[in-house]
Amino acid sequence: MTLYQKLAKRLREHIQHDFYKPGDKLPSVRQLAQEHGVSISTVQEAYRQLEQELLVEAKPKSGYFVCQQKKDNLPSVSRPPQRPLEVSQWEEVLNMLMNRSNQKGVQLQHAMPDMKAPTLKPLLKTLSDLAKQKPELGLSYSDIRGREELRTQLCRLAVASGCQLHPDDLVVTSGCQEAISVCLRAVTEPGDIIAIESPSFYGSMQAIKAANLKAMEIPTHPETGMSIEALELALDQWPIKAIFVTPTCNNPMGYTMPEEKKERLYKLAQSYDIAIIEDDIYGDISFQFPRPKTIKSFDNDGRVLLCSSFSKTIAPGMRVGWIAPGRYRDKVTHIKYVSSSMCPVFPQLAIAKFIRLGGYTKHIRQIRQHYEKQRDHLLNAIKAYLPSDTRVSFPDGSFILWVELNPNIDSMKLLEKCRAEGVSFAPGPLFSATGKFRNCFRLNFSEQSLEKREWAIKVLAKIITDFNVEKNK
Amino acid sequence: MTLYQKLAKRLREHIQHDFYKPGDKLPSVRQLAQEHGVSISTVQEAYRQLEQELLVEAKPKSGYFVCQQKKDNLPSVSRPPQRPLEVSQWEEVLNMLMNRSNQKGVQLQHAMPDMKAPTLKPLLKTLSDLAKQKPELGLSYSDIRGREELRTQLCRLAVASGCQLHPDDLVVTSGCQEAISVCLRAVTEPGDIIAIESPSFYGSMQAIKAANLKAMEIPTHPETGMSIEALELALDQWPIKAIFVTPTCNNPMGYTMPEEKKERLYKLAQSYDIAIIEDDIYGDISFQFPRPKTIKSFDNDGRVLLCSSFSKTIAPGMRVGWIAPGRYRDKVTHIKYVSSSMCPVFPQLAIAKFIRLGGYTKHIRQIRQHYEKQRDHLLNAIKAYLPSDTRVSFPDGSFILWVELNPNIDSMKLLEKCRAEGVSFAPGPLFSATGKFRNCFRLNFSEQSLEKREWAIKVLAKIITDFNVEKNK
Ligand SMILES: Cc1ncc(COP(=O)(O)O)c(C=O)c1O
Ligand SMILES: Cc1ncc(COP(=O)(O)O)c(C=O)c1O
Repeated sequence: MTLYQKLAKRLREHIQHDFYKPGDKLPSVRQLAQEHGVSISTVQEAYRQLEQELLVEAKPKSGYFVCQQKKDNLPSVSRPPQRPLEVSQWEEVLNMLMNRSNQKGVQLQHAMPDMKAPTLKPLLKTLSDLAKQKPELGLSYSDIRGREELRTQLCRLAVASGCQLHPDDLVVTSGCQEAISVCLRAVTEPGDIIAIESPSFYGSMQAIKAANLKAMEIPTHPETGMSIEALELALDQWPIKAIFVTPTCNNPMGYTMPEEKKERLYKLAQSYDIAIIEDDIYGDISFQFPRPKTIKSFDNDGRVLLCSSFSKTIAPGMRVGWIAPGRYRDKVTHIKYVSSSMCPVFPQLAIAKFIRLGGYTKHIRQIRQHYEKQRDHLLNAIKAYLPSDTRVSFPDGSFILWVELNPNIDSMKLLEKCRAEGVSFAPGPLFSATGKFRNCFRLNFSEQSLEKREWAIKVLAKIITDFNVEKNK
Repeated sequence: MTLYQKLAKRLREHIQHDFYKPGDKLPSVRQLAQEHGVSISTVQEAYRQLEQELLVEAKPKSGYFVCQQKKDNLPSVSRPPQRPLEVSQWEEVLNMLMNRSNQKGVQLQHAMPDMKAPTLKPLLKTLSDLAKQKPELGLSYSDIRGREELRTQLCRLAVASGCQLHPDDLVVTSGCQEAISVCLRAVTEPGDIIAIESPSFYGSMQAIKAANLKAMEIPTHPETGMSIEALELALDQWPIKAIFVTPTCNNPMGYTMPEEKKERLYKLAQSYDIAIIEDDIYGDISFQFPRPKTIKSFDNDGRVLLCSSFSKTIAPGMRVGWIAPGRYRDKVTHIKYVSSSMCPVFPQLAIAKFIRLGGYTKHIRQIRQHYEKQRDHLLNAIKAYLPSDTRVSFPDGSFILWVELNPNIDSMKLLEKCRAEGVSFAPGPLFSATGKFRNCFRLNFSEQSLEKREWAIKVLAKIITDFNVEKNK
């Protein structure tokens, strides 16, 4: 390690440990040179390095400052139409899904975890051992509720989120998508209304559409989630059958609903005697420790159906998800059975072992630190390059965030131009039942290298500027 | 090989090649002894062996005969109630599914293929190589329609059933169960009526129930399938939205609808402008060569949705199925996406390679000969041990058959007693929307050894006799 790298490392650690906080002025070049007994140019080199990492910024004539990366410019609280609506936008979702495989460039549109983490190695080893040593295990039909080994480990994990579950309380599914679809069908009849966050994950909205349900989008705060007041109003006015929420590390916003608000939401559902479907898919990669409690942890009458999967914490290709269906267990088991019968056995066994031997907890601990750093880097890049009226969510978990541009910018058109330059993102309208959020988009910060990500944000910035110039002509 | 074994082998071959046909008298003991230059007792030993295999029977004072195993005592044509009904029987189905894992004894209830076939080895090898050499391939999200490699090979296979398909015409699913559920949801609205065979596979009936549809059971002939005349009557009287059929190697009966009848069925659907969902899951293990055509092969306006999987031809644990959805492709893609998003990649790639290199065709060729022999053995055992008023279907493909007992016998009660003795089967009521077929059950003849199967049939016979004795007391 060279001298300047050593110095940069030290400064970086100070910043990361909040010794210097965002916005703080950092020591001058001269002062550092003296303190550390190094040359001026070494200090300058160290600062240049930190600038490239977007950790510090130079202000002309005043020196170096820690970059602001706090919630100073959050997206607005959403104001969806206050009536139940049919979900549209399937064409747009399909278009994005189909672009998954054949696209080059920097893809910021998919909610894919970082799967190159070395902490996943033991899991992959088990999978390959199983396939080699016990191929016959993968051949038969097996328990339609999923392997007991896995359900037992899921109960162990659930303790961290405040839940006491028994293996019989769980049903394993083909990912969280199947979990959501099954739960929706278990608690509704065709024509029913479901209250959802706004914005909401397109997969759950499309499941609402396919189950012949209507979506009632509720105003949602970018820091604390669905508005309880607005929800209560809606419950008063409409025969809402269930509430669907992703309250922990929300997709697309990244916020976590505070615990007391989760409890209020639960009590409200109780007083209207309706079900809650809680999507906790990102819960384990919250940046808080211990991880936030689920709404399910408050559930004392079985009205919460918790849905999750390992698609964001391990890898989506595993297709291992689950439901803790509470009092809806029998209906859920029926619909899961007709939906795809039982799930493949190897991924279940391999993940069960991964959890049992501690590999999962270790992996999560490391990967969530990684994501937190990537978040800061992306927030800094956005601040550095996108127009100053850009608003951005501040995820406290997951690896996605939500950007709100000036209202005169159309993210669908923006996407077209960006794709031509090799950059893609998930445009806002996918996250609305009716194609709203045209000036918003979702970015992923899990996978790409810092350089590629920064390059992509610069490309985005350039195209947005061109847009504005054109508009103003 | 001893002398008597050699002789038995020779006779067995003659019988299997129809040199001696069912019912034919076989050469006398003396004659064979002379022809082959062996002792009388050697010939007697050989005949005893073939008797044990239920290939020949001794008739007192007249000598040895080839066992009858032809369609001389088929189950009756079904007479379901002629109105649309809700599907019940979920409790009974669940009960059977849950008994899957923890049951000892001879299990004749599951439609599980023989998975010990050495011809499956190359497939298992590929699976284990993939898991070891390219673990990253199994991690990502991939094409929601399924891997192109697999869809290409599926098109190749489809030629044998008379279909010209393009990879874009296919959607890969988590087994045939998901295919069925997705197709039902794609062509109906809640409340619609579906015409089905009677008896019908419980998995598709439960999918009908879960999709809030009604089932209209159509009288079904044990040799040629759904009655076209009865179907036409029903179509005249009720607003039927789609026809669901398993016309090739039907589950549970094993019949194959003749080709011209398939074409008539298609034309009828055309004249009423409704869809056909065709379940072809056993099609490739028909005992006919070339395999029978599908209804899909007559489809010139895209109204047939073909569903299938490798669960019966390879192994259910693969969970690889597919849909050829015709004109419903977009709707099917949507519902498949919300149902479970994309399917795991390894089984798709491994099966694609297995087909591409000829392993699949080889496997099918061998396994279907195996099943045909097992069928004959089971038919003989039934003839030998069950009461003479027993009726039994004559499957010309698959590895399951349907038994109809004297109407005063209740298969649910029978099952209880049989389970206590270590024998189980799939009771008739599972195959009816409303719990009919109480005196029927389905048996599987894929997996067990000849000895075990025969033992099980003897146990069954004893319990049935006790039943009758009790009744007559
Ligand atoms: C909030 C949320 N729920 C569910 C899913 C679907 O997850 P899976 O891949 O496990 O089906 C996703 C994936 O993007 C998601 O972000
Ligand atoms: C006629 C029929 N269709 C569909 C299925 C379901 O098949 P899979 O295991 O591929 O979901 C079965 C399985 O028993 C079946 O017999």
